[in-house]
Amino acid sequence: MNKSVIRFILGYVIGFMGLFLMLPMLVAFIYHEDVWVQYALVAAPCLVLGLINSYFKPKKFSFYLKEGFFCTGASWVVLSAIGAIPLWLTNEIPHYIDALFESASGFTTTGASILNDVELLSHASLFWRSFTHLVGGMGVLVFLLTVIPLAGGDGSQFNLMKAESPGPSVGKLVPKLKNTAQMLYLIYLGLCALEIIMLLCAGMTPFEAINTGIATAGTGGFGIYNSSLGGFNVACQWIVAAFMFIFGINFNFYYYILFHHARDAFRMEEVRMYSLLTATSIGIITINTLNSSKGLFDAITKAAFQVTSIQSSTGFSTADFNAWPQTSRCVLVLLMFIGACAGSTGGGIKVSRFVLMGKAVHKELTSYIHPRSVKKTIMDGKPVNHETVRSNNVFFGTFMLVFFVSIFCLSFEDLDFSTIFTSVIATLSNIGPGLSLVGPTANFGFYSDFSKIVLIFDMLAGRLELFPILMLFHPSIWNDLFNKRQCKELKNSGKIMIK
Amino acid sequence: MNKSVIRFILGYVIGFMGLFLMLPMLVAFIYHEDVWVQYALVAAPCLVLGLINSYFKPKKFSFYLKEGFFCTGASWVVLSAIGAIPLWLTNEIPHYIDALFESASGFTTTGASILNDVELLSHASLFWRSFTHLVGGMGVLVFLLTVIPLAGGDGSQFNLMKAESPGPSVGKLVPKLKNTAQMLYLIYLGLCALEIIMLLCAGMTPFEAINTGIATAGTGGFGIYNSSLGGFNVACQWIVAAFMFIFGINFNFYYYILFHHARDAFRMEEVRMYSLLTATSIGIITINTLNSSKGLFDAITKAAFQVTSIQSSTGFSTADFNAWPQTSRCVLVLLMFIGACAGSTGGGIKVSRFVLMGKAVHKELTSYIHPRSVKKTIMDGKPVNHETVRSNNVFFGTFMLVFFVSIFCLSFEDLDFSTIFTSVIATLSNIGPGLSLVGPTANFGFYSDFSKIVLIFDMLAGRLELFPILMLFHPSIWNDLFNKRQCKELKNSGKIMIK
Repeated sequence: MNKSVIRFILGYVIGFMGLFLMLPMLVAFIYHEDVWVQYALVAAPCLVLGLINSYFKPKKFSFYLKEGFFCTGASWVVLSAIGAIPLWLTNEIPHYIDALFESASGFTTTGASILNDVELLSHASLFWRSFTHLVGGMGVLVFLLTVIPLAGGDGSQFNLMKAESPGPSVGKLVPKLKNTAQMLYLIYLGLCALEIIMLLCAGMTPFEAINTGIATAGTGGFGIYNSSLGGFNVACQWIVAAFMFIFGINFNFYYYILFHHARDAFRMEEVRMYSLLTATSIGIITINTLNSSKGLFDAITKAAFQVTSIQSSTGFSTADFNAWPQTSRCVLVLLMFIGACAGSTGGGIKVSRFVLMGKAVHKELTSYIHPRSVKKTIMDGKPVNHETVRSNNVFFGTFMLVFFVSIFCLSFEDLDFSTIFTSVIATLSNIGPGLSLVGPTANFGFYSDFSKIVLIFDMLAGRLELFPILMLFHPSIWNDLFNKRQCKELKNSGKIMIK
Repeated sequence: MNKSVIRFILGYVIGFMGLFLMLPMLVAFIYHEDVWVQYALVAAPCLVLGLINSYFKPKKFSFYLKEGFFCTGASWVVLSAIGAIPLWLTNEIPHYIDALFESASGFTTTGASILNDVELLSHASLFWRSFTHLVGGMGVLVFLLTVIPLAGGDGSQFNLMKAESPGPSVGKLVPKLKNTAQMLYLIYLGLCALEIIMLLCAGMTPFEAINTGIATAGTGGFGIYNSSLGGFNVACQWIVAAFMFIFGINFNFYYYILFHHARDAFRMEEVRMYSLLTATSIGIITINTLNSSKGLFDAITKAAFQVTSIQSSTGFSTADFNAWPQTSRCVLVLLMFIGACAGSTGGGIKVSRFVLMGKAVHKELTSYIHPRSVKKTIMDGKPVNHETVRSNNVFFGTFMLVFFVSIFCLSFEDLDFSTIFTSVIATLSNIGPGLSLVGPTANFGFYSDFSKIVLIFDMLAGRLELFPILMLFHPSIWNDLFNKRQCKELKNSGKIMIK
């Protein structure tokens, strides 16, 4: 393991945390709140550490997938741990594990809360909660790639991006990785700005519009009111619904549209399937909830909002869908598993993984019928790498294993099955609310510390798509970090670097 | 497709159904019941059809995996459809879809019932329900292999066995396939006889002992009393629990023990993991239910019975585990997914699939750490075929897809999530009872016909491990059967037979 480059990157992450924490300080100044002190108390050491770190450049910049995955896993743990400190210091969340839950929920864009009454929080803390969604949505290491001079070539940097970007296969939009990362952030922040402007026009206050806008962009879901978005007018709700749908789409789609490949954009199988799923789900739920609604428009509005919210893994709510009929609830639970598109800011297993799995099942069936036929798996008109298909299959199995182990851990709480089941999927898919006791009007505060730690693990594992977080539990990684066996290991893996 | 061999095998299956149906006739004679008429009305045409069929031997016996899978899928549909007719004709189950549910539940060894009061059934029908478990447990085509002269060589016959035998990899115990099938049936019936004798000694009547014995052997779970096995003494309960555990073990284990490879037997990773899971689950549930039990022994008895019953996918009950604390209920739901060993008569995803998946995940993690290392997956000290690992991964994904689609179909019933979720897993894993409205004291009678058909599909798909049943929905199979394109298809698949 190239320890110095890991130290260097983690140092940068901490430094940037210092910068990020100055934003809620600014909000505190604007609203004349005292909590800026606590934010400053955390920001200052972060900035100092980050500054010192940037002077000690690593000897060599090259790193491999394991360093990339380790860096990513470790960065996100560090982010969540530091992000929780101000919430805890201000005493707005008196228990550190609770604050950690809230912070991890923010960075992983889950939006699950342990707070009974979010309206008690200071403006600074409300903004900080929403801002963590913006950081987590596109990824902090992808952000690092856009701004800091990380030498080591595209190959090395790609290992960092691959670990943080969701989806079965991560590709470059433009030849240089740095430009790809910049392009992604440009689309991301551009769309976010557009939403904020539209929300302002629709009647939100600037504070409401900014918070809602950045929480939608990251598909997070922390609201600033206890009623989530239920208190806003219908225009605002439709704008947010549209943008939740938009942020759940693979960002390649926007790149294609912006740069005259519109035909390629609309040919993307994943985007088509995602749109089809959204439309079908809205249709089913509208019909199913029509009787309990105030007319057709009300039913469509609520259904559209809730479907886009759950499928994009945002988790805002305008209705208590826990009280909806079972058919609607089931559709929502299935959408929790499926999730958004790969390469979006959304969570879940991802539509493209299901499309790929569908193709794999079809291929398996065909292989029984025509055993000697060798057919390639085709997606978007191009053959899919065999390794991608294999890795996709393993992902499904790993997801199930993590899911089952989490349910087992949570089963020690004496709660009904719906609560436990949807708590796990709501965190593992980074949705936010579940059903029953963790429904949209409830929160996760009643869980024990042990269960909260399991759910924090699920949020991180879900956001980073399992492997970077699971890797932190692999003994060989820690052997590499702390033992002298490094050279031997490298030799075994066939990689001896002479440099 | 070799249509004539498919016709020949299906004809034999129907003929054997005629023979099987004579057993409940015998029971009806013994108990002086009139229902023998209805059984005879179904048996007679089956026997005639079977007899005529056996005169028209197919031109060529060779067949491939697709014929094997198609035959198996079609045979089980035919078995269930015919098996339902007498229950329907006797008016004991007045609605045919209900009778089909009961029959499919029997043959697939699920044990889920739509009957409110099984004690109203005639002895003949009670025996018929239990007997379907015995036929379905080891498989009707495996049975065919043991008795009828199926030419075509081991290669062809193996395609039949592969489709019906559970587990990621099906192997031969002895060089000749026919002898392997005979050996498996010998162990199966031998153990079943042993259980019946022990139950007789423990105080059951012959009718009770035979019914319970054959329902345990197939890991089915149809009881002959409304209280399932709750009314029998503790000795009987322990005997049944022990045999449920025994029938959930891979039959290779018994083969190894019988033929002096005892060391190999105890080295089987799957059996070790299965035993560990059973012991751990019993431990957890005993502690969890201790407060609500009449002492430690009562708690252990009930926990041991319910764990072995659910894990082996039998589904007998001695306690209403739906009323147990949530931890115990969760453990049972997880066991429903895991299921028994491959190569046993039990259902579920199978322990070996989870072991293999665990190894695949570990390999995936290792491949990130040491990208160039090429490690083989080892199981029971031998390297696992790459194709087996791949197919295992696809199985997990397929299982999830079928599971989700089934939940979606059932969600049109306005029922709680626990009921729908456990209805699907209880049928797809061939368990029988679930939780909530389909708990051990309840039944599946309240479902609509559409939902019942979905659940029948799940039972068949679960018993045959998905692909043989899914294949029945593949258009290319039906093209092969009814179109002239056969030769073209064969050419495409690279198989031109000149014979």
